[in-house]
Order: sequence, then structure tokens, then C-alpha cells
Amino acid sequence: MITSIVNGEEAGVVSPLDRGLLYGDGVFETLAIRDGRPCYWSLHMARLREGCRRIGLQASDEALLREEAERLAGPVGRGVLKLVITRGEGGRGYQVPDTARPTRIVQLHPWPEYPPGCAETGVATRLCHTRLGCNPVLAGMKHLNRMEQVLARQEWDDPDIREGLMQDRDGNLVEGIMSNLFLVKDDLLVTPDLSQCGVAGISRSVVLELAENINLQSRVRHVSLDELMQADEILLTNSIIGIWPVIAVDARGYRKGPITRRLQELLARRKTEGGTWRR
Amino acid sequence: MITSIVNGEEAGVVSPLDRGLLYGDGVFETLAIRDGRPCYWSLHMARLREGCRRIGLQASDEALLREEAERLAGPVGRGVLKLVITRGEGGRGYQVPDTARPTRIVQLHPWPEYPPGCAETGVATRLCHTRLGCNPVLAGMKHLNRMEQVLARQEWDDPDIREGLMQDRDGNLVEGIMSNLFLVKDDLLVTPDLSQCGVAGISRSVVLELAENINLQSRVRHVSLDELMQADEILLTNSIIGIWPVIAVDARGYRKGPITRRLQELLARRKTEGGTWRR
Repeated sequence: MITSIVNGEEAGVVSPLDRGLLYGDGVFETLAIRDGRPCYWSLHMARLREGCRRIGLQASDEALLREEAERLAGPVGRGVLKLVITRGEGGRGYQVPDTARPTRIVQLHPWPEYPPGCAETGVATRLCHTRLGCNPVLAGMKHLNRMEQVLARQEWDDPDIREGLMQDRDGNLVEGIMSNLFLVKDDLLVTPDLSQCGVAGISRSVVLELAENINLQSRVRHVSLDELMQADEILLTNSIIGIWPVIAVDARGYRKGPITRRLQELLARRKTEGGTWRR
Repeated sequence: MITSIVNGEEAGVVSPLDRGLLYGDGVFETLAIRDGRPCYWSLHMARLREGCRRIGLQASDEALLREEAERLAGPVGRGVLKLVITRGEGGRGYQVPDTARPTRIVQLHPWPEYPPGCAETGVATRLCHTRLGCNPVLAGMKHLNRMEQVLARQEWDDPDIREGLMQDRDGNLVEGIMSNLFLVKDDLLVTPDLSQCGVAGISRSVVLELAENINLQSRVRHVSLDELMQADEILLTNSIIGIWPVIAVDARGYRKGPITRRLQELLARRKTEGGTWRR
């Protein structure tokens, strides 16, 4: 069952004039709830604040968000919490009316039951035909304009292919549809630069930090298809899956390697550290 | 007053799980209602169908849409009709669930009372800093991912500047935030190619057709900033404004010219021709 609180109201609904609906004018966050507690709450809040700032949207009261999130997610052990902040109701036209008040949505979704093999053995992926358009004013942000991801996800329905990898218009690898991408080559960890497109994931930043802690060299830069093909290890990250090793990109096979394994262990340990509702 | 019909229900609301809200997963149309009748209904329906086809969305029953549109707009002389079709409710995740049923929204908005001078004398515009990302899978479509337009419209609040002109990442002129762009140079009508980004407006297609009718040569192709600067006439089109001459792009002045005047006359005549609720 999925439950939503909209502007404080349980089982609330959204106006057909909401600019989140009409223009995708807003931002969102997706958090893991484990042992009844939100993972990386403060990192998600920081990204939400930054997204609001970038699009000129009044940030939500975080204490209120936390209270509503706890109301939904506190009673459950595991779940996925989704927070959506939109520009709120407007008239017609792109100009933001002075009267607009943000819409605040807190949703609890069931935990997706991926087979344990996804994290243990790894997942098969495909290279998507749908490319990501480049726009620095939107890059990195988790905004509500996600047609590219929707179209990319429509490219296949084989349930054994767990993720699609997306390139930008120049052919650089950017990310998975729902995840960030890392590769390992000669003990160097590389993840694509997201200054032109893509979503800067929270787990991506945590993995970069973990790498630093163990003196694993990492680089954030352009990644070509050739480089992906030549990688020793490929891994995917997001707040729900944690780290998935990639064992195939289309017909090309890869193996789960020692660096992926090490990062998984570190991430699992770090996950169980943090996260309480009240600070 | 704005009224909405959502899936047949007057004053209906939208689920916070609607993919139109969560991903901008849908398309829309904006039509003028004049003398109680919709202008260019069949052209708008054709674009809506094509948009649905491109994103793999089941097209709406047009008789039903027309009936709901008439219910709202039939009693008014003038207004703006907005039709929105989204993918409907989904769970979390980009994959379209088999159970998704499109959400159909019909809205009546008041006619915007632009000063008569906008069409008669012309409007001042500015060149936006916000650029349009390029993606052929989305180009031309009137989809619900409109953050770029929202951000571009936030660049100014001087009410005397009526429109912002947008370039793509390579600097080509593409369109106005809410309108399509034409220029005239040496009796040639030129409008930007929209195969990489932009919305292929209904009025744009009508103006191209009117030009053909009077043997005015036209071209659809890339338009550079230089070419815009050197234009004899610049005009903007959309379903609500019709044709607006541009008299300024930032500090550079332009004059309303004979071709703009001629196209305005032809468009006004054509507008009063068509449009009934029942065929």
C-alpha cells in the first residue's frame, strides 16, 4: 500500500492546477527506510534545499517534513520514502505567480523486493538508445522533468535486465536510468561528470567519500563508451539498491570485482550507523 | 475563475501518484476559444495524438474530450482551453505499470487581456540566458517537462518585456518561451528547425501554410543570433496571441513590417472561418 501526506493532509490530493503536474516544476528525493529510520536524511535534505534554491522555490520547513515522514514511515521497518516539493498552484503560463505556495508531498512506498542476487552476483544491463539532453541549469538536480528516463525505461521489458545505461548527446556515459554509474580500471574508481546532465545521487557522493576513506583513488570526469567496455568492474548505486555490480552491458560480460565487494561492505556498515528521526 | 474536469469529474483532483506530477509523463494542448468555439480543434487533436504515440501513451477518446471541452467552454465567448493527458497513476519507478490508465484533464482558463498594442504595435523581448537542451526524442512535442521554460521566465519581471527568446546549446535561436519565432529577411520567411528541441506550435504550422498560399517563400532551418540581429521583421506566434510583431530584442529595435501585417490579416480571416464543437 502507498500512502501520501499532501500539505499535511493524510490521503491528500493534488490540484489539477499544480505546476508540478503542468510543468514538472519541482524537485524530489527518494530515501531508504531501514529499521524504521531514514538513511542519510541530512544529505537528502541538503540536496533538496539546493534543488529548491536552484529553481527559486521556497524550501520546505525541514522539521515539518521530518515529522510527516516519521508519521508515515516510523511504524514500518523497511520502506521507500518519497518527498516531492512543487511550485504549487498557478494559473496558466510559465511565470511563477506571487501567490504560489509550494506543495509538499510525503509518500511511503513498499520496499522493492529485488532478488538478493542483484547485489550479490550482479545485474545485467543494457545501453539505452534514448540519450540525455545537456543543460547545466538542470544538471545534477533531482527535478520532476523525467521524460527521458521514462522513454529510456520503455525500451525493454525483459525483467532480467535490471537497468539501462544512458549516454549524453555526445556519447559520454552519464548514469543509469535510476542509478549512478561507476567503473573501476586499474584500481582507479571513475564516475561520470554530471555538470551537463544527470542526477547527482546521494549514494554516489557516499561512495566517493568511502573511496577516499580507504585511499582508493577516484575521478569524476567524462566516461566514453570505450572506457566502459574496457572496465575491470562496473557498479551502480542508488539509495534503495545500495551498490549493484554489473555483470553485463548488452552482450558484453563483466565480473564482480574486489573493489565493488569492498565498497559494498563499507556501505553496508555505514548504512547501519546513521539515521534517527530526531536529532 | 478556472475550472477543471478530471477524468470526467467536474472540480476533480489529481492523485499524488500521478506520473504526470512525478515525472512530467504526459502531453498537453492549449487552444483558443473564440465566439464560444475552439480554434483549430482538429490540428490540436492531431498533435495530441502524435504526442501520445511518441511517448507510448494510449490516446484519449476525442469525442469524449470534445464533449468535456464543450461542457466547460461552450457557455463562454472567449477563453483558453487546456487539455492535459498524463500516463496516470503508477507506483514508484520509471517503468510504466501495465495497470496505468491515462489521466484526462480539461481546463478552462480566462482569456489573458494583453494590451491591444501587443498585436498592433509589437512587443519588446529579451534573449534568455537559459538555453534549451537538445533531444530529438522530445523535440517538437508539447510534453509536460517544462522546467527550462519556467527557469527562463524567471529571468526577468519587467512587465513591458512580453517574451523571452531561447537558444539551444549551440547558440541557434529556437523559439520564444511561450511562442514560436519567425523572422523575415529580404522577403523570405524563416522559422527555426525544431528537430532537436522546441515545441512545434499549431499557429506556426498555420502561418507556414498561409505563407505558401500567398507564394511567400519560407524556410525551416537553423537560425543564428546574427541572422536574428539582421532581420527585417521578427514575429512571434501562438494559439492565444496569434501573431505579435517584435519591436525589440534587448536593446536592439525592429519595426513591424509589411509581411507581418499581411500574415496577421490572413490569420485573423482564417481564425474566423473554422471551429465548431460538432462536425
